[in-house]
Amino acid sequence: MSRVDAGKNAGMLVHEQEPYNAEPPLSALSSLVTPTEFFYSRNHGPIPTIDPGRWLLEVDGLVERPTRYLLRDLQQLPAVQATVTLQCAGNRRSGLIAVRDVPGEDPWKDGAISTATWTGARLADLLRAVGAQECDGLHVAFEGQDVSGLADPPQPFGGSIPLAKARAEDVLLAWAMNGEPLPALHGGPVRLIVPGYIGARSVKWMQRVRVQDHPSTNWFQAHAYRVLPADAEPAAASAGDGISLGSFAVTSSITDPADGAAVTWPLTIRGYAVAGDGRTVARLDVSVDGGRSWHQARFDNAATPGVWRLWHLTLERQKYFGGDVEVVARAWDDTVAVQPDDPADLWNPKGYANNARPRIRLIGAAGPP
Amino acid sequence: MSRVDAGKNAGMLVHEQEPYNAEPPLSALSSLVTPTEFFYSRNHGPIPTIDPGRWLLEVDGLVERPTRYLLRDLQQLPAVQATVTLQCAGNRRSGLIAVRDVPGEDPWKDGAISTATWTGARLADLLRAVGAQECDGLHVAFEGQDVSGLADPPQPFGGSIPLAKARAEDVLLAWAMNGEPLPALHGGPVRLIVPGYIGARSVKWMQRVRVQDHPSTNWFQAHAYRVLPADAEPAAASAGDGISLGSFAVTSSITDPADGAAVTWPLTIRGYAVAGDGRTVARLDVSVDGGRSWHQARFDNAATPGVWRLWHLTLERQKYFGGDVEVVARAWDDTVAVQPDDPADLWNPKGYANNARPRIRLIGAAGPP
Repeated sequence: MSRVDAGKNAGMLVHEQEPYNAEPPLSALSSLVTPTEFFYSRNHGPIPTIDPGRWLLEVDGLVERPTRYLLRDLQQLPAVQATVTLQCAGNRRSGLIAVRDVPGEDPWKDGAISTATWTGARLADLLRAVGAQECDGLHVAFEGQDVSGLADPPQPFGGSIPLAKARAEDVLLAWAMNGEPLPALHGGPVRLIVPGYIGARSVKWMQRVRVQDHPSTNWFQAHAYRVLPADAEPAAASAGDGISLGSFAVTSSITDPADGAAVTWPLTIRGYAVAGDGRTVARLDVSVDGGRSWHQARFDNAATPGVWRLWHLTLERQKYFGGDVEVVARAWDDTVAVQPDDPADLWNPKGYANNARPRIRLIGAAGPP
Repeated sequence: MSRVDAGKNAGMLVHEQEPYNAEPPLSALSSLVTPTEFFYSRNHGPIPTIDPGRWLLEVDGLVERPTRYLLRDLQQLPAVQATVTLQCAGNRRSGLIAVRDVPGEDPWKDGAISTATWTGARLADLLRAVGAQECDGLHVAFEGQDVSGLADPPQPFGGSIPLAKARAEDVLLAWAMNGEPLPALHGGPVRLIVPGYIGARSVKWMQRVRVQDHPSTNWFQAHAYRVLPADAEPAAASAGDGISLGSFAVTSSITDPADGAAVTWPLTIRGYAVAGDGRTVARLDVSVDGGRSWHQARFDNAATPGVWRLWHLTLERQKYFGGDVEVVARAWDDTVAVQPDDPADLWNPKGYANNARPRIRLIGAAGPP
């Protein structure tokens, strides 16, 4: 039996081997599309091994024609290809842990985000094919084949999205990733891709689509993946407490140079920025004086909903020679929402949704230049 | 000839008489639906006087059947009623002016926002009726009958929204406000209502709907209503510079007690909070120690996209007796975006989009209680 992490690069930062949870080094996030060997992997149970020829998707609930799809049936629907960024709700949790510990959760750095080109069928086409009801306020729930012992009681991973999003043409049932059949580690044979939502909604090893009149009651949506107030006790929380994570707020990271590197002039700073459902990153400012003055970065790719924007800025030698340089970035989305400054404001008991401005310190030369 | 402000309450804070620009006192923002006499009014030119029997709407561009609608034609489409909050892009500008002057713009306080129940036809139904093209990336542009000398060259006020939003069922061509025919001051006979977008997109005195392959080139969209970087010179800016305002970021205000009032215990604090397109306000925290600790407020109405949420919190006497109390509020939307703390970060040359946390100071008793 092959290792669960077969195909992943040896440079991955592995938080857990079982279930496999790993993120790429920041240096691997410098291209619009992340190589599959570096794509982050967030799992809640053992990776299912599924024969694509026997894969089956049950589609039921508020639909005229409940239907079972084989992979070849799904592939009768029009195939579309889309480049989409996925981001874990716990991306950048380490920035919250620096404020105060988050017990029981992996200390994800800024690499729980990656971008791939996915090929699959539109969920909207599948819903049309089965005659899904179209009333306002419905939800589409999903279930994977990965049974998680983290849930109480143990259950397959699942979640839901509003029907309006499910019909929005950008949600895919994907069977290929970066031009290859979808690897088992990333949800193969078929996973969901929900652009602009936390990665947890992009359910892997899909086995069920259900149209229903309420959000998913799956443990991972009703209990987990919720932002509780800072003073709440997660063990005492009831289903439905807190803010249910779905679409996410604008965030960014500085991917180069590394925190603690030496200052070199001219100084080029690079990173990524991403906005949630239907929004795009509109501006990215960088400060090299700890936030007193700001320079606008240039983007390497156009603004497209669901896709991160890579950015860079080159600064000639400033008046900081000799001293350390504190670099801060802040992204603005097209609603003029800006990243908040203080991660202490964002701390929550499960350490989700840290979109505070990224900061690094570059070490200056000991003496004058 | 009747006064332009006929029907408005004498308590309105009038920024300009010609064109009429006025906001209600905060005390008038305590009900879910704002009485029409208190609804804020933002204008860019003289108020047109239009005979409803002669009102005409031209619908053209990328449509199969360019059509002229009389009011009675429009009223053949299904009539819908919806409660929607409108907010001017300049709401809370005074908070930015406190950081640094914003020359040439009215110092709107926190009252450039109001909510009404509107009756009208869905724009989506009108677009279907004329056979509008449905390709991705199209825009729907609007033009009013109010000619503005503020524009260069002078032109009717206008703007556009993406076709996807225009087809989203929540955009109305409204002919009634709070159960009465739409007053001339608020855009009668017919205005647009675009929930979740800056008020400038809810074009008044509608005379044209055009489906086109590019955003509006109207001066008020291409030049005005844009967030420029703090160091930009508005007079030197080109069309398309900066972030085009459309959907807005989460914001809130403390409407009671007034800034500078005396502390009384128990202390009840009230306000509003609102999120932009498709989002809702998920949590509202209040601090009475300047932001060190937070209490969750209660909402008076449910979370509905396009509608503000009124909130309140009652605190028993805290340990602050005798001293002043600094009250701060922060709203979170359902993407876990939180209001930023520092208005200095948000300052921009035209003073738009101030969504910083509201702060008031309550004056403590001189001596011990």
